[in-house]
Amino acid sequence: MDKWLVTRVDLKTREIRSHPVPGPWQHLGGRALSSTIVAETVPPQSDPLGPRNALVITSGLLAGSGASSSTRVSVGAKSPLTGGIKESNVGGQAGYALASLGVRSLIFEGEAAPAWTVAHLGPNGLHLEPTSELAGLDVYQTVERLRVQYGRNAAILAIGPAGEMRLAAANIAATDLDGVPARHAGRGGVGAVMGAKRLKAIVIDPAGSRPPEPFDRRALSGAARRLAQELQAHPTTGKSLPVYGTAILVSAIDAIGGLPTRNFQTGTFEGAARISGEALHDLIVQRGGKPTHPCMPGCVIRCSNVLPDSEGGELTRALEYESIVLLGANCGISDLEAVAQLNRRCDELGLDTMEMGAAIGVAMEAGVISFGDSSASLGLVEEIAHGSPLGRALGSGAALTGRVFGLSHVPVVRGQAISAYDPRALKGTGVTYATSPMGADHTAGNALPGSALPDGTQPDPAKAKGQVALSRYLQKLALVFDTLGLCWFTRPPILADPSLLTDLLQAQHGGNWTMEQLLDEAGTALATELTFNREAGTGGGDSLPRFFRVEPLPPRNTTFDIPEVELCETLADLRSYDVLVHENEKKV
Amino acid sequence: MDKWLVTRVDLKTREIRSHPVPGPWQHLGGRALSSTIVAETVPPQSDPLGPRNALVITSGLLAGSGASSSTRVSVGAKSPLTGGIKESNVGGQAGYALASLGVRSLIFEGEAAPAWTVAHLGPNGLHLEPTSELAGLDVYQTVERLRVQYGRNAAILAIGPAGEMRLAAANIAATDLDGVPARHAGRGGVGAVMGAKRLKAIVIDPAGSRPPEPFDRRALSGAARRLAQELQAHPTTGKSLPVYGTAILVSAIDAIGGLPTRNFQTGTFEGAARISGEALHDLIVQRGGKPTHPCMPGCVIRCSNVLPDSEGGELTRALEYESIVLLGANCGISDLEAVAQLNRRCDELGLDTMEMGAAIGVAMEAGVISFGDSSASLGLVEEIAHGSPLGRALGSGAALTGRVFGLSHVPVVRGQAISAYDPRALKGTGVTYATSPMGADHTAGNALPGSALPDGTQPDPAKAKGQVALSRYLQKLALVFDTLGLCWFTRPPILADPSLLTDLLQAQHGGNWTMEQLLDEAGTALATELTFNREAGTGGGDSLPRFFRVEPLPPRNTTFDIPEVELCETLADLRSYDVLVHENEKKV
Repeated sequence: MDKWLVTRVDLKTREIRSHPVPGPWQHLGGRALSSTIVAETVPPQSDPLGPRNALVITSGLLAGSGASSSTRVSVGAKSPLTGGIKESNVGGQAGYALASLGVRSLIFEGEAAPAWTVAHLGPNGLHLEPTSELAGLDVYQTVERLRVQYGRNAAILAIGPAGEMRLAAANIAATDLDGVPARHAGRGGVGAVMGAKRLKAIVIDPAGSRPPEPFDRRALSGAARRLAQELQAHPTTGKSLPVYGTAILVSAIDAIGGLPTRNFQTGTFEGAARISGEALHDLIVQRGGKPTHPCMPGCVIRCSNVLPDSEGGELTRALEYESIVLLGANCGISDLEAVAQLNRRCDELGLDTMEMGAAIGVAMEAGVISFGDSSASLGLVEEIAHGSPLGRALGSGAALTGRVFGLSHVPVVRGQAISAYDPRALKGTGVTYATSPMGADHTAGNALPGSALPDGTQPDPAKAKGQVALSRYLQKLALVFDTLGLCWFTRPPILADPSLLTDLLQAQHGGNWTMEQLLDEAGTALATELTFNREAGTGGGDSLPRFFRVEPLPPRNTTFDIPEVELCETLADLRSYDVLVHENEKKV
Repeated sequence: MDKWLVTRVDLKTREIRSHPVPGPWQHLGGRALSSTIVAETVPPQSDPLGPRNALVITSGLLAGSGASSSTRVSVGAKSPLTGGIKESNVGGQAGYALASLGVRSLIFEGEAAPAWTVAHLGPNGLHLEPTSELAGLDVYQTVERLRVQYGRNAAILAIGPAGEMRLAAANIAATDLDGVPARHAGRGGVGAVMGAKRLKAIVIDPAGSRPPEPFDRRALSGAARRLAQELQAHPTTGKSLPVYGTAILVSAIDAIGGLPTRNFQTGTFEGAARISGEALHDLIVQRGGKPTHPCMPGCVIRCSNVLPDSEGGELTRALEYESIVLLGANCGISDLEAVAQLNRRCDELGLDTMEMGAAIGVAMEAGVISFGDSSASLGLVEEIAHGSPLGRALGSGAALTGRVFGLSHVPVVRGQAISAYDPRALKGTGVTYATSPMGADHTAGNALPGSALPDGTQPDPAKAKGQVALSRYLQKLALVFDTLGLCWFTRPPILADPSLLTDLLQAQHGGNWTMEQLLDEAGTALATELTFNREAGTGGGDSLPRFFRVEPLPPRNTTFDIPEVELCETLADLRSYDVLVHENEKKV
């Protein structure tokens, strides 16, 4: 593992230092590593938009292994949205490019102000290049220019105007395999952190380099092939995800009454069928688009998509479940074309579609525009482009928008919008929202129907029983996947046979790996994150908005009824995890 | 003390219960009592604008004693601005009216929605009366109507449009001795809490009632007379405050380089002389106004004022130092007439002048309008009246305005604007800002030049040495005064001879009182407040914005350099105060 590098960049002094991954970080990657670096580098009470914050990019432990779906990149920072630690990960080209250069982490500290800067990473190391012509350009325009300048093989991470404006809903876009910036490190406002550092883009050009030699190349090929075969053989990863993408969930979550509709007023949407995975698939096929599209090199699941417009151009791509539901059902919009336009415009401006769907829903609740009014919704997104006060409020996220309009019915936890799963119908996910260091982020432990505890128990998502245990387990499991850079969607065959995963790690890095040990290390990372948050002064126990407890969700009329004391205990237990593990070790 | 009553009102069920002050609360009044009630009544994690918050009104332990300056009223709640516990106190008629009815506390719980309500308290108890015609009226109009309806002897607490809009900078106005609503429980957004409860006004009509009989009426008269004489004999309370009011500080704070100017960019203002206490005094005299005006019945200090306009009408009144500096110097405005207009318009809308001056300064820093542009500043206040998104952002306070515009140079602590004392020049006040449970509130322990520790030491405000000890002491001392309902300005003779105060308490309530015991109880109340904040998930250690540490303040070029660890220790010590006292008691 000593072939992997860490590159630390001080944007102010322009000092750049590269060194091998230090010992204590060698078993870390992705989220575990980005959070460890943030916790060690960033003072918990510092200003997320100030020079003491760091923007930390990490590749996962399986990056460069050649395994399917294994090159997600983690972006870590103190979040301007939650005020706590954040990790947001993204597919696309960047992970493989980083791995090809043997880079485990890029750490950006300080600020490049006043000049806008592009960081260029290649076989000869990292260089900072001032840029003036990119300022103000949208994400698509920015990437187009950079690809002309740096060549079509470079992976690009970039921010749009929203990030430049330091808006807390700003994301970081990543180029997909076609070089189109349609993948996103969406959550937590990491784009605003990058904007505050005056870093417009990170260009990663492997220029023919190849990843560091694995421990056992032959075993690695075999393990990667086996995982690919298992993914293709599984009905979810081999069939429904490739055909319908993540949007397959629209009908499923609507059916169980958990689809956020009109600012989380109801759990089903009368227009659900018109924005469903089936509808999206049919529209894409009808227009000659791609209903099946990979987001990472070598991915066999290929759950993404490319949607043409009615005239043969490209309307948008990577139109995912959460974007569809929050920009669609949550705003009362059942016109898939309008949802796709909103998605595209958010992507151009560099705005998290989830945060924006929630913020627009809140503005609708406040009466700024009407539920269902898609052209007015597009108008609100344009307000952000214009930088009007209303636009800046919306671009600062749903929580701030709710505060501006004096509302209490605001679906956020610790400043971040709840994702496209109502916690009254998916109670394990609700426990994750309330206790995860990541704020209301479904990717931190989403308890979808069918989610099982290690003993095989499948708690009913609508009932309180078992949900706390399920969330605790899933929060650690999600952290394992995010540490490896492995897509969460690969888990069906892996949970059935963890050797699919541990064989990969063994062949890549040597040593012995077990799922138990990985879950243990995930617990330590969770504790690190929660401790950071406590020191940052965010957090506390149950911070789901009150309305989830007292307003029954039609049509099933469930409330979120996990006792607060269990959430507090969960938080306390997770936060002390490293202490516990350490004490147990001492006993042994 | 059992003659004093607590009246608890559930605005939703309209249930009203009155009972004598319970045993554990009998030595509490004002802030100590309001904070104790909030801590016992409001779940720390509840929504400040939701039904679980309480609006707690308390009179002080000296209310009704007849002592000068002793009828301040405390307003307590969970603050929508800081997310923590808040107490904001106010002079005017209400304290004496409450005392006349023997009321120690009014507690409003739940919400009166959807109808707007007036609470009327008289000798026959409290009654809730729906009102529709008052909705939308400004504070002056509201009070005018209520005085027609309920008579000119009723004290009134009321909110304006800002409170109705649930804006976090909304205050609660109180009528002064002329029945004019120019006194304010200004800080923490308590007006938004009242607005969220749909409570437009509280009318307190003593109707000839008299305060409960004190323990020793004769001794009380003597003690009250002695305090009045000492106040009149002291140069500060007998001369400069009556003549120049609190605005006397403009020149003094400018002279030491601590006057917030242009969003805290510098510590002196070239226009300071034009907005000074001397300039204000001369303008008032020239226009035939009142440079000397009492805010509470029987106050001998009379540091307030009434400023006529150029045509003989009334422009504004109670134009105080903090309003002048934050609406003036901090916005680069040196036109006293314009500052008075801004003050009046904020008063009409029910907005805290301090929070608004800071928010307008932030908007100027963001380039929304220019520094020094007074008519554009008035325009921004009108945006709030119109409820525009920009107006709603500004009315939500400086912190939120800063977030909307993506700024880091935002003078706030825990969501609340820093008052008119730059912490780089007044470092003890800076310690209070950073560690007080009240957020950046100078009234929680203002270390002005000349402030002394109990041993007589006077730390230099511009130096770090001694400031932590001074702030710790002043935070408790301020809490003592706020618990008694006693104006902070009475302290010069009282600190020289504490028997002026303990004799009053003894004559009013019987028993033995010492300053040490009062400070001890203040420590317990501080610990209660800090513990609430910790459970609410706010707080932490040094939360002064970073720029105070790294940007030297011209012209003296000092930074805020109190070590962070000392602030953390202060917070930890203050928070554990009750535990320590309790343990010491056990040892004894």
